[in-house]
Amino acid sequence: MNTKYKAFCDDPDCTHAHHSWLAADNALHEGGHEIRQRRVYVYSPSGAVQDKVAIRRGARYLTKAGYDMVLDEAVFARQTRFAGDHATRLAAIKRAADSGADVALISRGGYGLNHLLPLIDYAHVAQSIDAGVQWMGFSDFTALQLAVLAKTGRVTWAGASLGVDLGHADGPDEITLACFEDVAFRVGEGAGWRIGKDNAEYAGLDLQGATLWGGNLAVLSAMVGTPYFPQVDGGVLFLEDVAESPYRIERMLIQLEQAGVLGAQKALVLGHFTHANVTAHDRGFNLKTVVQALRDRLQIPVLTQLPFGHIRTKVCLPVGAKVDLQVGAREALLVWGHV
Amino acid sequence: MNTKYKAFCDDPDCTHAHHSWLAADNALHEGGHEIRQRRVYVYSPSGAVQDKVAIRRGARYLTKAGYDMVLDEAVFARQTRFAGDHATRLAAIKRAADSGADVALISRGGYGLNHLLPLIDYAHVAQSIDAGVQWMGFSDFTALQLAVLAKTGRVTWAGASLGVDLGHADGPDEITLACFEDVAFRVGEGAGWRIGKDNAEYAGLDLQGATLWGGNLAVLSAMVGTPYFPQVDGGVLFLEDVAESPYRIERMLIQLEQAGVLGAQKALVLGHFTHANVTAHDRGFNLKTVVQALRDRLQIPVLTQLPFGHIRTKVCLPVGAKVDLQVGAREALLVWGHV
Repeated sequence: MNTKYKAFCDDPDCTHAHHSWLAADNALHEGGHEIRQRRVYVYSPSGAVQDKVAIRRGARYLTKAGYDMVLDEAVFARQTRFAGDHATRLAAIKRAADSGADVALISRGGYGLNHLLPLIDYAHVAQSIDAGVQWMGFSDFTALQLAVLAKTGRVTWAGASLGVDLGHADGPDEITLACFEDVAFRVGEGAGWRIGKDNAEYAGLDLQGATLWGGNLAVLSAMVGTPYFPQVDGGVLFLEDVAESPYRIERMLIQLEQAGVLGAQKALVLGHFTHANVTAHDRGFNLKTVVQALRDRLQIPVLTQLPFGHIRTKVCLPVGAKVDLQVGAREALLVWGHV
Repeated sequence: MNTKYKAFCDDPDCTHAHHSWLAADNALHEGGHEIRQRRVYVYSPSGAVQDKVAIRRGARYLTKAGYDMVLDEAVFARQTRFAGDHATRLAAIKRAADSGADVALISRGGYGLNHLLPLIDYAHVAQSIDAGVQWMGFSDFTALQLAVLAKTGRVTWAGASLGVDLGHADGPDEITLACFEDVAFRVGEGAGWRIGKDNAEYAGLDLQGATLWGGNLAVLSAMVGTPYFPQVDGGVLFLEDVAESPYRIERMLIQLEQAGVLGAQKALVLGHFTHANVTAHDRGFNLKTVVQALRDRLQIPVLTQLPFGHIRTKVCLPVGAKVDLQVGAREALLVWGHV
């Protein structure tokens, strides 16, 4: 691996924040800057937007960066905790599919997709993907991503949301933005991250052509046994979560293990499990315990430190795409080429 | 239904707290008080005991009430949050099976059975049940109950724990104790409870010979898709939980629904969902919303108010037994006859 992870292009005149982690293969810059304006369609499939300011700030930021920003008419809808009732959110998903956008981006996650899954027109979503719409989000959005993969085999992107990430009060995280732009401009070919001693045993790992899939652990494990859970054999499964205590994380992983999901994969890649708070009763039982026990039980690599989850710096990952997973002494690399 | 729910025997000289909800069929009292002393074996299959005083208080209480109380040698064991490592708890389960007790009773729940499920000797547990050991517990114990049902078809009891219930600082709840005694003395034949207007639409319901099963919703839903989840068709499924917010309760119910579990049952009976706290973001989304939406979607009765869960007053329910479910204007009745 002669690749380098660099957050940004070195060209001081570049007005776009493209990152080029494959320094020798920066296709975007080889052709100069003749770049078509990209459209981003923002909609709310899950929870009601609580922070409208963040949505407007994110839209303003991306507009200034050159994007054609379109906010769905129901982006601020609310019914109790949801961004509108079932019909409202289903219609928003349909409009996102019909948007002709380069990226159909969630305003935020929360909770609300699970009960919509039987009602979604998956053929219509698949058509939109074939026509070039790239669906992106994370957290609750995992439910839609897995259902689309199960029902259509199409690729969606685990990545940023407008409210939490791109509309952040401090501005978007540089790497998060760069990865988002890679998707918007269809130049992303992979994601690399630094790994520590915790992953030393996996140095030299080189998996080829495995299906990348995953997302939020709570959402994903809550779909086991349903028709919306994809049957992936020999895949690379990535997982993250927020505000789940270590014993709950273990219980969810055990469900995946005992259901035969983990054993059927070539590798497990853990992102960040934020606010995985322990209590006095845990007495030393923590995330490390959970990961170590998992490594002891499973026959497959369990990598950690993937920059993904409920954290500011998150890469974009193509759910359902074939990837190579390469692990060096200090970094790991997921490579998908052009999706 | 000419049955009455009465908490206790009317005999003022009775030293046992038997309840007789079937007033016309109080077999225990018909034969007088020639009662063999019952043995209760207390062990810790899940979380480490945090309140040893409660365990000792419960054991003292039941000893005074005439029981032969045996505490497992590892009842107070601890490894991090668990009541000992895997081997320690597996050995405790084995000793409980070999105890010859009338009731093998958990000290407490917590978390810890899921990762033991592949390691348990189910044939040995089945032998103990055939020999007369009645296994009782709730919460995390649901995992063992469902696995035993899936692997052996044997009946276990959803009911009290020693620490939380029988060793309560205020003494055991009268109905909880009475139901426990019914199991210990093998005279329980059913459980009745008052229902309110919320269940008015189900008055007249009379289901015959359905398999009763269920327990803690979080534990049960975390077993969907695994070999330890029983395949019950045409059953009566009861559920309870603690400290799960309404949106999580809905997500778990949706998993059961979309996995085809709910639709395959004849009825769903909801116990108590304690500390199902809503937040400001829920904006009116609450347990009632969840139950109403479930009733709207499902074709089966969804009864509520079953006295079971993380509450002081809990009935004992035979998981895996055939039951009749009868609903009157003001009460519902689960009848299993002699298990």
